[in-house]
Amino acid sequence: MQKSLSVYDSDGSTFAPLVVIELVSETKEEAIAWLLNRVRDKQQDGGAELLVEQLTPGAQGTEKDNPNVYVVGASWQRLLYGAEDVGLFKEFNDGSMRGFTYANKHNFKEFQGDGDGFLSMAECQYIIKHELDNLRAKDEAHVPGYPKMKLYPGKSVIRRMQSKGILVQVFPLHEKEELKRLSFSWFKKIKLSFQPLDDIRHYFGEGMALYFGFLEYFTLALIPMALIGIPYYLFDWEDYDKFTVFAGFNLVWCTVILELWKRLSASLAYGWGTLSRKKAFEEPRPGFHGVLGVNPVTGRAEPLYSNAKRQLRIYLVSVPFVLLCLYLSLYVMMIYFDMEGWALMIHDEEPTFWTGLLLFIPSIIYAVVIEIMNLIYRYAAEFLTGWENHRLESTFQNHLVLKVLVFNFFNCFASLFYIAFVMQDMVLLRQSLATLLITSQILNQIMEAFLPYWLQRRRNKKAHKRMIKTMEDKELPLSEQVKLEADMSTYLGTFDDYLELFLLFGYVSLFSCVYPLAAVLVVLNNVTEVYSDAFKMCKVFKRPFSEPAANIGVWQLAFEAMSVIAVVTNCALIGMSPQVKSYFPESETQLIMWVVGFEHFLLASKFILAFVIPDVPKHIQIKLSRLEFESLEALKKRKMLEASGIPKTDK
Amino acid sequence: MQKSLSVYDSDGSTFAPLVVIELVSETKEEAIAWLLNRVRDKQQDGGAELLVEQLTPGAQGTEKDNPNVYVVGASWQRLLYGAEDVGLFKEFNDGSMRGFTYANKHNFKEFQGDGDGFLSMAECQYIIKHELDNLRAKDEAHVPGYPKMKLYPGKSVIRRMQSKGILVQVFPLHEKEELKRLSFSWFKKIKLSFQPLDDIRHYFGEGMALYFGFLEYFTLALIPMALIGIPYYLFDWEDYDKFTVFAGFNLVWCTVILELWKRLSASLAYGWGTLSRKKAFEEPRPGFHGVLGVNPVTGRAEPLYSNAKRQLRIYLVSVPFVLLCLYLSLYVMMIYFDMEGWALMIHDEEPTFWTGLLLFIPSIIYAVVIEIMNLIYRYAAEFLTGWENHRLESTFQNHLVLKVLVFNFFNCFASLFYIAFVMQDMVLLRQSLATLLITSQILNQIMEAFLPYWLQRRRNKKAHKRMIKTMEDKELPLSEQVKLEADMSTYLGTFDDYLELFLLFGYVSLFSCVYPLAAVLVVLNNVTEVYSDAFKMCKVFKRPFSEPAANIGVWQLAFEAMSVIAVVTNCALIGMSPQVKSYFPESETQLIMWVVGFEHFLLASKFILAFVIPDVPKHIQIKLSRLEFESLEALKKRKMLEASGIPKTDK
Repeated sequence: MQKSLSVYDSDGSTFAPLVVIELVSETKEEAIAWLLNRVRDKQQDGGAELLVEQLTPGAQGTEKDNPNVYVVGASWQRLLYGAEDVGLFKEFNDGSMRGFTYANKHNFKEFQGDGDGFLSMAECQYIIKHELDNLRAKDEAHVPGYPKMKLYPGKSVIRRMQSKGILVQVFPLHEKEELKRLSFSWFKKIKLSFQPLDDIRHYFGEGMALYFGFLEYFTLALIPMALIGIPYYLFDWEDYDKFTVFAGFNLVWCTVILELWKRLSASLAYGWGTLSRKKAFEEPRPGFHGVLGVNPVTGRAEPLYSNAKRQLRIYLVSVPFVLLCLYLSLYVMMIYFDMEGWALMIHDEEPTFWTGLLLFIPSIIYAVVIEIMNLIYRYAAEFLTGWENHRLESTFQNHLVLKVLVFNFFNCFASLFYIAFVMQDMVLLRQSLATLLITSQILNQIMEAFLPYWLQRRRNKKAHKRMIKTMEDKELPLSEQVKLEADMSTYLGTFDDYLELFLLFGYVSLFSCVYPLAAVLVVLNNVTEVYSDAFKMCKVFKRPFSEPAANIGVWQLAFEAMSVIAVVTNCALIGMSPQVKSYFPESETQLIMWVVGFEHFLLASKFILAFVIPDVPKHIQIKLSRLEFESLEALKKRKMLEASGIPKTDK
Repeated sequence: MQKSLSVYDSDGSTFAPLVVIELVSETKEEAIAWLLNRVRDKQQDGGAELLVEQLTPGAQGTEKDNPNVYVVGASWQRLLYGAEDVGLFKEFNDGSMRGFTYANKHNFKEFQGDGDGFLSMAECQYIIKHELDNLRAKDEAHVPGYPKMKLYPGKSVIRRMQSKGILVQVFPLHEKEELKRLSFSWFKKIKLSFQPLDDIRHYFGEGMALYFGFLEYFTLALIPMALIGIPYYLFDWEDYDKFTVFAGFNLVWCTVILELWKRLSASLAYGWGTLSRKKAFEEPRPGFHGVLGVNPVTGRAEPLYSNAKRQLRIYLVSVPFVLLCLYLSLYVMMIYFDMEGWALMIHDEEPTFWTGLLLFIPSIIYAVVIEIMNLIYRYAAEFLTGWENHRLESTFQNHLVLKVLVFNFFNCFASLFYIAFVMQDMVLLRQSLATLLITSQILNQIMEAFLPYWLQRRRNKKAHKRMIKTMEDKELPLSEQVKLEADMSTYLGTFDDYLELFLLFGYVSLFSCVYPLAAVLVVLNNVTEVYSDAFKMCKVFKRPFSEPAANIGVWQLAFEAMSVIAVVTNCALIGMSPQVKSYFPESETQLIMWVVGFEHFLLASKFILAFVIPDVPKHIQIKLSRLEFESLEALKKRKMLEASGIPKTDK
């Protein structure tokens, strides 16, 4: 915990600021007073029992600074009780991971003294966010001062104010010292080493650490493919039919690495205490709106939105929209092929070095256009999914992921499928694949880290300079730090990062047998990706709230689906190779039957393999069952004690 | 509860006998005395706190009757506490299903007075079995009187005595009145109606009720297929290429009915309180043996068996054995084809009515041989899986099911696959399918219900006659009833019943497009199957202990796998039909590509459909989340009360 920064609360004692709440500058006085009171109120009175103070503007404070910025903290006890509320798992004395309880606190391994180094700052911030989100309306009919901003008993006050726009943002503060240490061990040193996943998890939470863990694992898993790919590339450039062996290896490899990742992620999640942690009851997402009704689950009055209406919106608007976008993407693809033909024509007429270079231009332009279309579609999909008005964040995410995945898959790979299976032009396929892959990698790295960084630098150049100066001197006052961080861009979650990996995985696995260098390129990309992602997390974006996660969720499924499609495409490519065709000189039918049979065999093996390899490693499974056994035994013992007092009357 | 039968316990009061324990007649006195004491001891002393008495032989008791037969019962309170121990779910006042707790008993819907009609007899028997199984060795080093029969602290005494052969059997008693009512509403009345599933569950438990529910559902689901099949059969007997439409319908239908069954079974299981019931911690199965070690989960000393040794047994003995059996089955199949050719030769030489009949003889003989081989293999598989020495009953079952399924699938369908895809003789396929299906149905019905019934009648003809007489007069004394029931065959679980349905499902789905009458035959078979299964449960077998189950377990997976294979075979059959071939007169390659493409499309749709249809119906899901929400709220309230007393010192 950072002890250097502290603010005085109303009693005159100090507390460490953890989270910042920013309200719009014209918020009415009574609303502010009411909110602060609710945050400070004792829990039995329905408050959050947190410490909150207005940020006193620093020396450089100007008139146009927003005065309604508040910092929130909490006493150690409050945080420990909160840790029990959110169901945090911590290492127990015997080395197992157990749900933390306040009563049992001294039996946890790292608990010392009054427990003040026990929770990491990220955990404290997560707890405070949870408690703020759980601040519920009691008997208020509306937010004081805003008669139109209705409140229903039991609904989250913070979410309401956020969706109505009074609350600008809630974000956790960075911790300068730790961030510096983390940056150094993560991306500042040159030495080749694994990422400090535990430190990342400590600072950014489990969701982020799993992303970086997956990125690293994926990169390492591709290295064998890359190593095998290099000699193929060096010695057999034009002889792609030898790649059938390579493709076969590839298919088995894809299945195995995805299964092993499940096990690795279970190990990581166990060590981080998120594997057996129960999911919290999900609240409606902030943007959800509807007509007042009774929630059948909670029995409380709250806005409901009819499922039929939502289905209508999905099937009558979203689906046609997605189809239209797919059609547009197809149209652009056709223009690309026209350009390709035109470039080829020029090159054939009078081949020079420059016309040879010209051959790559259409692919590069197409790759740029694909990226732009993906970007625009991404925003459209988010808007449309928001408009579908899903009640829960998880269903919103699922619908968004589905929309984006379908389009991005189609947009990125349609041209390759067309070249491979309709035109059957393997030379063009290889060239197109290489250009698309390389261009999209370069674009992504620029768009993702350097563009936001540059934009931000431009935006607050002066402030930034000052920050860098004072950061080094460790003298930046709290108000300055908060102001700087509030102006940083908000990190929108791991969605885009996973999506990028997903598309790269597609480039590697779908057509690996025509372009074995793909794996090499993706490995190189991923290595720089680690650095640019780490850089953007530490330097470019606001600190995100830590997100407990036990696995990579829907992305595991997406990667597995991709590896199934890869089996089909690779088998088809193998069947089309002259080498294989030469085995069946007389009968094409027989060739196809063999390829189809082989493909079915591979698919069946894939499913059996996925079924046979346990998702959780044995030693973790034993630890989990031991915990379960112990809690059963404890329950039994308790019941036995209670039962020993039964009156035996009606025997 | 049956009140008519009762025995006097040692205090002179009476109790209703529920479960019978039979020890071998030469069991040593001290072992018996020790066991009875352990059963009667109070729970805090490590006993089961049940009531147990020796059965006093009736008037007809002869010298050769085993004297060591004991009846077990319990007081109502003990049973209610037991219901809490086993985690029984019952209907609450508000209509939801909740885990029963003794303290809360008056809030359950059917709880009246001292709760003596609250638990069904099957539930009471299940509770007693659970309590007997949980009778654990304390500090005894061995069973008294048997120095070689070692006991380890914490190990189940009953299971130990059972695996060592002192304990012959433990079985629940029938309840004559209720059985009579159940038989009447189930299979004695002629009127067409649904089975009384709730009554079956009430008497035989959830596992059995789910089997009969599935049997009924499966039959009803086949009716549309049967109805569509009849006109095909009547008007297009030799024109099998029109069946492509039929096959298409078939495929969609198979997927949909399996998905809908999951939802239906979730509804049933919710109503029966098994859907959200937690699985009990699994004990080693009675036959498991090994070297004394420390169980990593419980930390107790108990026999362990190294996984490596088990793997060796599986891969070096079981797998080769299964392969050998498959080879044998293939060999028998070849003999069948020789016979088939020989019969055809005779018929072709001089065709008469009798040689026409002769054509069916090889198929019939083959069908009989298949059934015999299945039966022998079944025993071999059980022996082999036992020898593999699996620690848990569930892994034992999984390995057994896998072995049996692979062989039975191969044994029953290999000849059909050969005829369909190697010989490509559709007429023979249809004839062979029909003969196999009909013969195996007839054989099964005989083997399964009538043979055991006839054997049993022969065995105790005299006693049986007496029973029937006295059953009608309701005068049979307890000792006679126990003796009769002890001699009945033991029902070995639903395994064979499900296996039979699985194979029937294979006959219907795999080659449905050549023999649309299959569905009709299976429907007819299932209707009689309901009656013969019901008859055997009520009249032929000992009452089985009720088995809580939330779904049909591994069989759902088996049926789904079959429906996937059915997609492949039906697509191949469609592709081979002259009607489809006529669409692609010039290019066979194109035909195959289309068929393969169509098949991939169907498979993908199947997986997407399975993914999209929720496994639990919405209204059940709402009820489940309501329960979860309420328990979370209750926990929060409790914590809040506790937390309100925190000292606020280090603020």
